[in-house]
Order: sequence, then structure tokens, then C-alpha cells
Amino acid sequence: MKLHIAVLPGDGIGPEVIAQAVKALKSIATVYDHIFTFEYGLVGAAAINKTGIALPEETLALCKKADTILFGAIGSPKYENDPEAKIRPEQGLLGLRKELDLHTNIRPVVAYEDLSNKSPLRKKWIKDVNLCFYRELTGGIYFGEKTFSEDGNTATDTCTYTRNEIERVAHRAFKAAQSRKHKLTLVDKANVLASSKLWRKIIKEIAIQYPDVAVNYLYVDQVAMQLILNPKQFDIILIENMFGDIISEEASVIVGSIGLLASASIGDKYSMFEPIHGAYYKATDRGIANPIAAILSAAMLLEHFDLYEEANLIKKAVDKSLQLQITTPDLNTKYDNISTSKVGDFIEDFINNPEETNLN
Amino acid sequence: MKLHIAVLPGDGIGPEVIAQAVKALKSIATVYDHIFTFEYGLVGAAAINKTGIALPEETLALCKKADTILFGAIGSPKYENDPEAKIRPEQGLLGLRKELDLHTNIRPVVAYEDLSNKSPLRKKWIKDVNLCFYRELTGGIYFGEKTFSEDGNTATDTCTYTRNEIERVAHRAFKAAQSRKHKLTLVDKANVLASSKLWRKIIKEIAIQYPDVAVNYLYVDQVAMQLILNPKQFDIILIENMFGDIISEEASVIVGSIGLLASASIGDKYSMFEPIHGAYYKATDRGIANPIAAILSAAMLLEHFDLYEEANLIKKAVDKSLQLQITTPDLNTKYDNISTSKVGDFIEDFINNPEETNLN
Ligand SMILES: CC(C)[C@H](C(=O)O)[C@@H](O)C(=O)O
Ligand SMILES: CC(C)[C@H](C(=O)O)[C@@H](O)C(=O)O
Repeated sequence: MKLHIAVLPGDGIGPEVIAQAVKALKSIATVYDHIFTFEYGLVGAAAINKTGIALPEETLALCKKADTILFGAIGSPKYENDPEAKIRPEQGLLGLRKELDLHTNIRPVVAYEDLSNKSPLRKKWIKDVNLCFYRELTGGIYFGEKTFSEDGNTATDTCTYTRNEIERVAHRAFKAAQSRKHKLTLVDKANVLASSKLWRKIIKEIAIQYPDVAVNYLYVDQVAMQLILNPKQFDIILIENMFGDIISEEASVIVGSIGLLASASIGDKYSMFEPIHGAYYKATDRGIANPIAAILSAAMLLEHFDLYEEANLIKKAVDKSLQLQITTPDLNTKYDNISTSKVGDFIEDFINNPEETNLN
Repeated sequence: MKLHIAVLPGDGIGPEVIAQAVKALKSIATVYDHIFTFEYGLVGAAAINKTGIALPEETLALCKKADTILFGAIGSPKYENDPEAKIRPEQGLLGLRKELDLHTNIRPVVAYEDLSNKSPLRKKWIKDVNLCFYRELTGGIYFGEKTFSEDGNTATDTCTYTRNEIERVAHRAFKAAQSRKHKLTLVDKANVLASSKLWRKIIKEIAIQYPDVAVNYLYVDQVAMQLILNPKQFDIILIENMFGDIISEEASVIVGSIGLLASASIGDKYSMFEPIHGAYYKATDRGIANPIAAILSAAMLLEHFDLYEEANLIKKAVDKSLQLQITTPDLNTKYDNISTSKVGDFIEDFINNPEETNLN
């Protein structure tokens, strides 16, 4: 298969983790005789520094002509401490989601047996957790009208959802549930919000079309508790944009490190793959950033193009690295100084030689 | 002291847990020679069933003439499954908050040593956690305009904050930090939301007036993770209404049971005290509801009127009940069948006779 991949490393640890994901993809191409080409673009603070804006036209054009996108992370402390900055790195990411209409954000959360000691949760709580978020990504309060009063003393955000926005992510979520444990939980705040009432109404209608999927409805505050109290109860979690941001990041504690969670953002035409962690500025260029989330995002990219065998090989490589503790310090209790690129090298070696790879 | 207390037991387990809180208050009155009088009112589904609305005029009048309010819980499955119901139990609670202008919701989260085995979190993670939410309670998306398009296919919520709304809860939160560990964390989503940008701007201004308080700023998604990964880092958490609902309920997992968390809702003129748990319908009248959150809410009520010695006696009684496992089944690993009212009886006995009380 030929794939032209737009690579947007972004800020902070983005470039170093994405470099490992690209290494993995290159090895896969070699082993399976695919032709993967990579073209790099600027986004986030990296783009602001060079061009003055977070999502340059050139980058957007590159993404549109590519077959798919691999994205690192955006964000910079410079902007976090200036709530009034008009130009912000986040505009790069949010702009891509909107311009490419990447409405469905898929975030799998799978607990690894080998890492159960890294989770703050007791082992028996997290064993066998295997859930997956379907987060709506281009609607809601993120993209509603934002206004400030003239005197700067009043600010308003608007959260709108339409039937179409809800239906398209919902159908994908129901279909995913059909290929998994046939359970779907809608997360909303229908006892308070109008938009949540619309979600609940529409999901109730859609549920009839999927009689083999058991649907339940939970308020977001209850889910914030239940996700930790009893994560095994969940299979597919369908959730609107803002709540999805909060609850899916919370779910990272189950796994033991946010450096393990990958995501796919899918639209009708375009697709983008990114680790769910942020730019983690403080760690930049120190070789301590965990590349596994980026590498697993590359595996999700392969799955998107039905390259399941290839994706599975990457996942096996990751499993092996976790098992042997060829991992960055966030996960490692055995070895010091296993760096970002060392983990990437191990994954690369494993892909090239699944039978022989070991720590060397 | 003379206190006339409006008692609104509400729905589900509300009446049974509130009965225990009233018992505790009555014992306190006897021991300390106070005159506490109690006047009951309807709210929530209980009020809808009898009067057709969730917050009858009579109840509101009762609350306004009382010195303070003790509130149980509202909610009923009848309404949860009907997103289109025009009359809902929540209107009782939200109506009270708004009508009485109860803008500051205080939710302390303290990990009990004796209960560390009930938390899904490992013991070392939660030892010494002692944090407190200051949640804004009468603004934001809860009370903004809500609209549906005529065809019912589009819904909009509005989230507005004004300087005044932010300042009044913020000053209370900063003052609380001064009497505690001198740390305050603002939780927002200032990288995306206009209202969050306003929060961050105003808190930066106010922080200058409290040089002895160390302030930090975190995005809500990061807090959802950090609250579990490292809860000890927090002292006062200042948070807007919707995020506060989610994150404070999440915090209940640290303690081991949501049946332990009390809250105070304070305005310039009125005050209300309530457990943070809901109506928990399935448990109604089964004697399994944990009354401690309601009893600790009564202790917060006493503190509000500067009756610290009295409040401490209640807290000591609660500590003793936890230590001896005179607790409902959600917490108990030793005895079967210790009922809601049995826990209340123990607390009552302890208040009357702190030196002698034991299991009997
Ligand atoms: C960086 C930020 C705008 C983004 C979001 O809030 O969606 C991030 O937290 C995420 O979850 O991908
Ligand atoms: C019952 C509901 C409206 C309420 C809220 O969302 O504020 C509750 O969850 C709470 O936190 O007190």
C-alpha cells in the first residue's frame, strides 16, 4: 500500500515522540513492502514562532492532500500564563479538527497487566479494563460563539449541538460496540443541560436500530466517579466534546501513564492520529518522554487503512517493551536511563525481527 | 443559641439520612443548651408528587424565614429516563441555589485512615489527603439561557460569567486558603473557553491581594488526572460550576465512599447544608444509606454559626463510628446489617456520652 502521511510534530515533546512513531512506520513499510512517504508541517507554538499563526495555510494544504495525518502535541507555557493572548498554539489543533471535520475522536483505554503497579488504583480494580471513548470532536462549547463584554467583565461561551453532529459520531460508536462487548454508555448532564437532553433523546432513537447493544445513560459527574470505582463496567463510552476531554484524560490513571494513550480523529474525508498527552514542555529534549502513545497512534493509523497485521505487530512490540521494561522513566522500576529513542529503537528492532529482539 | 432550621429531606434516601442528621443536631442542642427548632418542607420529586412543582412557594418562604437549611437529596428515575420532562426534581435544588443566591459551594475531602482499604486507590496515594473545593454554584452553564430549535434538532446552552460572580467566590476561597495550607488551584479551560479566560484573568488580579497564598492554574482535564495521581498536591480548589460538579464528585473516590462527603452552600444572606450524594433511589427505605455525609453536613452547619466545639463533637463521633465500624454496608467489612438509623443512634449516643459510647 502507498500512503502519503502528513507529519505535524508540534511542540514540546511532540517532535521526539513522533520521531519514534515514524521509525516504527518505516520499519513496517520495509517488512510488509508498503510505500509510506512522510511530509512534515508546522503547527502550534512551533508554527507561531516561524509564521505568526498556529495553523499556517501551507500546513492545512499539506494535510488535505495527504492520505492521513500523524500529529504530536501542541502547547507552550508562554501562552498558558497569558489568558489574553489572541494567538494560541491550541488554535492549531482545534483548527485542524474543524477544517478537516474530524468529528469522531476514538480513545481506547486498555489496562496492561505488566503495569498494574504503576496505576494509583489497586490491581484488582483495573485488571481487564478495556474500554473505548467515542468523543465528539468538532461541536459543543469548544466551537460555539465566544464573546466578551466591552468592559471585559463578562464572558460567554455557547454550547450548541445539532442532530447531525450527534448522529454521525453515535452511529460510529454503536458500530464499534457491536464489534466489542455490545455495551454503550452515553455520558451527559441531561438533568441540567439542553444540549444533553438532545443527546439523550437522539441516542434513545438510535439505540432502537442496534438491538444487540445494551445502552445506559449516566450523568457526567457520576461517570467521573464510576470510571475509578468500577472501570470494568464500561465498553464504549459515547461523550460530547468538553466532557470527553475531561473524562478521557481521567481514564489515563487506570493505565498508569498518560504516555500510553493513543487516539484517532476521524472525519468523513480526513483522519488524524495523535497521542492524547500534551506538549509536556518541561520534558522537552530530555529523552524522558514516553513515545508509546505516539507509536500506538501509528498503529491506529494502520488499522484505519485495514492494515491489521501491521498494527498488531506494533502492538506486540509495545507489549514486549512493557514486559521487558524497555520503557521511559515514567514506567520503569528496573532500569535507569532508558530514553525515548531507545524505546523507539527497541520497537523498530522488534518489528524487523519479532523472534529475536531482547534487551541488548 | 437559637436556630430555626428549615429541613428539606427531598427524595430517595434523603429523608432517612436527614433524620439522622436531625437526631445529631437535637443531641447537640441538649448537651450544649441550644434551642434548635426544625420545620419541614417539600422539595424535588416529593414536592412534584404533592404540588405539581419541584420548589413550591411555601418551601421557598420557609427557607427564607429560617436561619439556615438542611437539605437531603433530589432525583427520581421517573425523570431521568424522560429527557423531555418539563418539570424535574432538579429544579427544586437549582431553584433554591438561585433564589437564595447560594453562590459558594464548599466541599471538603478528607481521607480517613480507617477507611483506606475502601478506596480503589492505594493507601500511600491517599494518606493525608485534605483538600477542599470552592465551587461556584449560581452561574455558568447551569443557569445560562437554554434553547431548542423549533424542529427540536438543535439545542444550545449558554455559559456566562461576570466579574462579580467570580470575585465573590474567589475571595472566600482565598481566605479559606489562608486558614489552611496557603495553596489555591484554579481549575479552568482557559486554552479554549472565553469564560475560563475571564476566570484566569480575575484570579491573577485577586492573587496579588493574597501574597501568602501560592496560586496555580490547571486545565480541568489535567486536574481530572492529577486528582487521582497526586491528590496531596491540592489544598483549596477553586472551580466554576460545571467543572466543580464533575471534579468534586470524582474526588469522592479518594475517601472511599460518596456517602461521606458533606457540603455547605453559602450566599451573602442564606446558607444551606447538604450531602453531596444524590437520592440513590434503589436504596430507599432499605436502611443501607450512609447517613454520615448528612451528619457531617449538620456539623458544617454548626461551624457556619461558629459552634466549633459542637461541630467537633459530631466529627469525633463520626471518627469513632468509622474506627469501630459502626457503619453502613458501603463501608463495613466487619459487621452485617448496621443500618442507617443504627449509625445515627451511635452518633447520638456518642454526643450524649462521649466517654462511654461503644458498640452495644
Ligand atoms: C489541547 C486541547 C485544546 C485539547 C482539547 O481540549 O481537546 C486536548 O486537551 C485534547 O484533549 O486533545
Ligand atoms: C442534582 C444536580 C443538579 C446537582 C448538580 O449538578 O449541581 C448535583 O449533582 C450536585 O453536584 O449537587
